[in-house]
Amino acid sequence: MDQRLTFVTLIVADLAASREFYVAGLGWEPVDVGGAEEVLMLRVADRVILSLWSREAAVAEVGAVTLDGAAPLTLAHNVGSVAQVDEVLTTAAAAGASILAPGQQRHWGGYSGYFADPNGFRWEIAYLPGDFGDTLLPG
Amino acid sequence: MDQRLTFVTLIVADLAASREFYVAGLGWEPVDVGGAEEVLMLRVADRVILSLWSREAAVAEVGAVTLDGAAPLTLAHNVGSVAQVDEVLTTAAAAGASILAPGQQRHWGGYSGYFADPNGFRWEIAYLPGDFGDTLLPG
Repeated sequence: MDQRLTFVTLIVADLAASREFYVAGLGWEPVDVGGAEEVLMLRVADRVILSLWSREAAVAEVGAVTLDGAAPLTLAHNVGSVAQVDEVLTTAAAAGASILAPGQQRHWGGYSGYFADPNGFRWEIAYLPGDFGDTLLPG
Repeated sequence: MDQRLTFVTLIVADLAASREFYVAGLGWEPVDVGGAEEVLMLRVADRVILSLWSREAAVAEVGAVTLDGAAPLTLAHNVGSVAQVDEVLTTAAAAGASILAPGQQRHWGGYSGYFADPNGFRWEIAYLPGDFGDTLLPG
């Protein structure tokens, strides 16, 4: 099995809220899914799709999932400076996100803050100084 | 906020089991994290890292998470043929995964099966015919 991820699929209770946040709010461009209403796909890296899938459709294929409480995952969006972390958090809040933690210095050497999307999925906006952080940014 | 994902971080109860599966079992190569024992990072796409983070370390930064039941997400690994779906599922099972659904035709036009990693995170191994599927595969 090659070391490769192609889709991250989040199973959501309210897909309309996801669409409102990512497409209308952040201005992200959806993948053309031929009019399928139960899924929203967003290209988020070269050969990687973030997919938001309505709970009703998802459980028919993957079985029951837990939507209570905080899901045991975070997504991250790395940027190139501390100032950009704060700017993106402000943008996300304006688009309807809940800020969970403002930008702050982290013990691992970077600076980050967290927001929750309308279905509670958490994004970390992070600045990671150094070569490793640089390899995660657009070329 | 640019349309970009850089980390997918899964919060796990048993990081040793993750390491055993992904590194020893599948042979995936970890990112050098300078000896940090609470995290395992794996490069899974250009500018995307899959990070497995021990629950104890994670909750200190992100707060409590729900580890009961099935998490509301799936990861996918797309391949180029039906036969490769079955091969990867066999490989994953040999490395310690639980097969949740064998490869099968899907109503969305492809063929896929699911396994769970040792912490219960589900991977779909999928063949998606056509141009869109092709754009997700190594060039």
